[in-house]
Amino acid sequence: MKAYASMSREELLAEQEKLQAEYKGYEEAGLQLNMARGKPEPAQLDLAKDMLSIVDADTICKSETGDDCRNYGVMEGIIEARKLMAEIMEVKPEQVVVFGNASLNIMYDTVARSMLHGVNGSTPWCKLDKVKFLCPVPGYDRHFAVTESFGIEMVNVPLLEDGPDMDLVEKLVSEDASIKGIWCIPKYSNPTGVSYSDETVRRFANLKPAAEDFRIYWDNAYCVHHLYEEADKQDQILNILDECEKAGNPDMAYMFASTSKITFAGAGISAMASSADNMAWVKKTMTVQTIGHDKVNQLRHVKFLKDRAGVDAHMMKHAAILRPKFELVEKMFETEIAPLGIGSWIAPRGGYFISFESLEGCAKNIVAKAKAAGVVLTGAGAPFPYGKDPKDSVIRLAPSFPNLEELETATKIFICCVKLASIEKLLA
Amino acid sequence: MKAYASMSREELLAEQEKLQAEYKGYEEAGLQLNMARGKPEPAQLDLAKDMLSIVDADTICKSETGDDCRNYGVMEGIIEARKLMAEIMEVKPEQVVVFGNASLNIMYDTVARSMLHGVNGSTPWCKLDKVKFLCPVPGYDRHFAVTESFGIEMVNVPLLEDGPDMDLVEKLVSEDASIKGIWCIPKYSNPTGVSYSDETVRRFANLKPAAEDFRIYWDNAYCVHHLYEEADKQDQILNILDECEKAGNPDMAYMFASTSKITFAGAGISAMASSADNMAWVKKTMTVQTIGHDKVNQLRHVKFLKDRAGVDAHMMKHAAILRPKFELVEKMFETEIAPLGIGSWIAPRGGYFISFESLEGCAKNIVAKAKAAGVVLTGAGAPFPYGKDPKDSVIRLAPSFPNLEELETATKIFICCVKLASIEKLLA
Repeated sequence: MKAYASMSREELLAEQEKLQAEYKGYEEAGLQLNMARGKPEPAQLDLAKDMLSIVDADTICKSETGDDCRNYGVMEGIIEARKLMAEIMEVKPEQVVVFGNASLNIMYDTVARSMLHGVNGSTPWCKLDKVKFLCPVPGYDRHFAVTESFGIEMVNVPLLEDGPDMDLVEKLVSEDASIKGIWCIPKYSNPTGVSYSDETVRRFANLKPAAEDFRIYWDNAYCVHHLYEEADKQDQILNILDECEKAGNPDMAYMFASTSKITFAGAGISAMASSADNMAWVKKTMTVQTIGHDKVNQLRHVKFLKDRAGVDAHMMKHAAILRPKFELVEKMFETEIAPLGIGSWIAPRGGYFISFESLEGCAKNIVAKAKAAGVVLTGAGAPFPYGKDPKDSVIRLAPSFPNLEELETATKIFICCVKLASIEKLLA
Repeated sequence: MKAYASMSREELLAEQEKLQAEYKGYEEAGLQLNMARGKPEPAQLDLAKDMLSIVDADTICKSETGDDCRNYGVMEGIIEARKLMAEIMEVKPEQVVVFGNASLNIMYDTVARSMLHGVNGSTPWCKLDKVKFLCPVPGYDRHFAVTESFGIEMVNVPLLEDGPDMDLVEKLVSEDASIKGIWCIPKYSNPTGVSYSDETVRRFANLKPAAEDFRIYWDNAYCVHHLYEEADKQDQILNILDECEKAGNPDMAYMFASTSKITFAGAGISAMASSADNMAWVKKTMTVQTIGHDKVNQLRHVKFLKDRAGVDAHMMKHAAILRPKFELVEKMFETEIAPLGIGSWIAPRGGYFISFESLEGCAKNIVAKAKAAGVVLTGAGAPFPYGKDPKDSVIRLAPSFPNLEELETATKIFICCVKLASIEKLLA
């Protein structure tokens, strides 16, 4: 195969004609495939089905502290659930509060709390003229939707292979007191799959922000979500809370996680962890906001997953389903895309996404073409604040939901669309 | 028995001496009884224990629309759960969104949303100089805690036997555009147990508020929580959403409810219902705030409770446990308090509370005395904004948690404290 860039106009036109015929076939097939969302496939959900039987009518629903999980009380979550989430998040149980189904809800509420009540006693952000967040890009669209909904100005920071561009982060955070936060997915990042190096984590912990109410929003969404069992194929990151404490910045980071992609995306538990002062501030609002979250579901999770070893073993079952999907897509890209020089990607060792980078100015076109041919992708631009990808080149692929056969078809169609869009770009 | 007010000083002193001896006995017994919170007793929770087995490893967790309850999606709740909550709330399923464990969380978020994003496009309240809520008193301390947490000024409105003083509500709401809401518990009100008359509900629906973003916060917490099975002993209230629509004010009310006191206080589901425009506004924020609430627990509730008839039958089992407790306390009050002229109460036909009104200036003293004798009561003042009972006379009693024997002892001690505090007041 010859790289498109080195093809003559005639060669490109011939290639285009061939691809258009292939594409027409897909259009006519009227397929309905979806690679838009990091959604577990049914077989993954089945892995946790025994959790639904583990608490039944005969279960004594008492927590370790003797509290009836079925009744009011224990707002911060039962202690055994806090321990479990602490093991998953690699923090101390007393740093953890357990919440309901979605960690997104905790993140939204954390920003909302800062807007309305301030951060540990600081001026509520809604009283300030300007509030900004740093957004490593490409990143997670729902993070950006949260900050956008509050009118918080989002500032792009490039996400490199070992984490955000820390030179830029350090400079901006130390100079601008209106910068109050940064969104981070430190492990198997959504969408690029990179994990932060130890140096990156330490530089985060040692930030000297101009704003005393600056916080690092550390969304540890994929903390135990490895694709490989071998230790040397698993990314490990430093603990940001420990590093912040060592650096004399104990209150600088909030950590979030959930079991959405461990047990059930539609019936999991989530958690937040931070310093004693930060968690006291959270609980102060929480006492007013809620009676507490579902403690029977917390008990269910503890009985089913037991501890970190139980979680790790369970995650390897997920990996067995997910790994072939990632490898399939990567192999097809290597064969079909790499030689043509029309795109790049990182082969992630965990998480839920493959981030594809096309030639500049092609992403929207590829997504539109794929849609017309029956493959729904995450919208082009979604991994950027305000949906604006400055190069129009990043596409987030989620290989988890389709089965292997569907995935192969969807990827074939995607590749065809990448080729077509690249040729259009080169011919223009 | 002779009313205390007609006793001579000597008679009062003799009575006091006798009571002090009785009180000393309680102090020495070192009891630990609690009438502070509307908390179901374990036997009530056992009524729903089969719900924990009704979804198990073998259950096909598909909703009526074919969605996998274990996976992402269906943010507004599965349709069968919306139907169930609609039957409980006596509204239409399309008016309902189902949430997580606590309806308090919906109410807090509804006020928070108005603070940050405004109401259906109005100016966010955090941008206004002054926001006020009307608070029928006595009322629910957690409502008042929500509004207080946002710095919303609370204005007391007397709660009469058929609802809030509507002359005052109409006057204030029509004159003052800074009044943005009113907290209502229309049925078996917390704490007085009264239900709103049809006229009250209609007057609510026909309010002409100066503020376009004024809303009625209709906390239908006890909508199916009757103590008696006979229809003529059950309070019924008009549907506020229907009445608002009839009155040309379709967007004026938000309704809230939960299964906290139907299934499990620690693992229930909750719901909000309102007009199409209001719910569209709610969902607009919700899409950013959360991935969705626990749908497997929604399925569990539907399979267990089935429909309104199922709910009503289940509630009669609760009533069989609760009714004797209410009747015991009321009977003891009638025998021991009524003849002495030192307090009054309403015998409620549903809900979770008996509200006791002591002689003026005695409530704090009674609560303190009870505490020292081993009976924890809701703090005096709690049923009022800012915890300030202008007459220091209202005490909320929650008879649900102790068993009958404990309740009898706790009530005996309470009565002793009422007598002692009343004598102190009369002697002063």
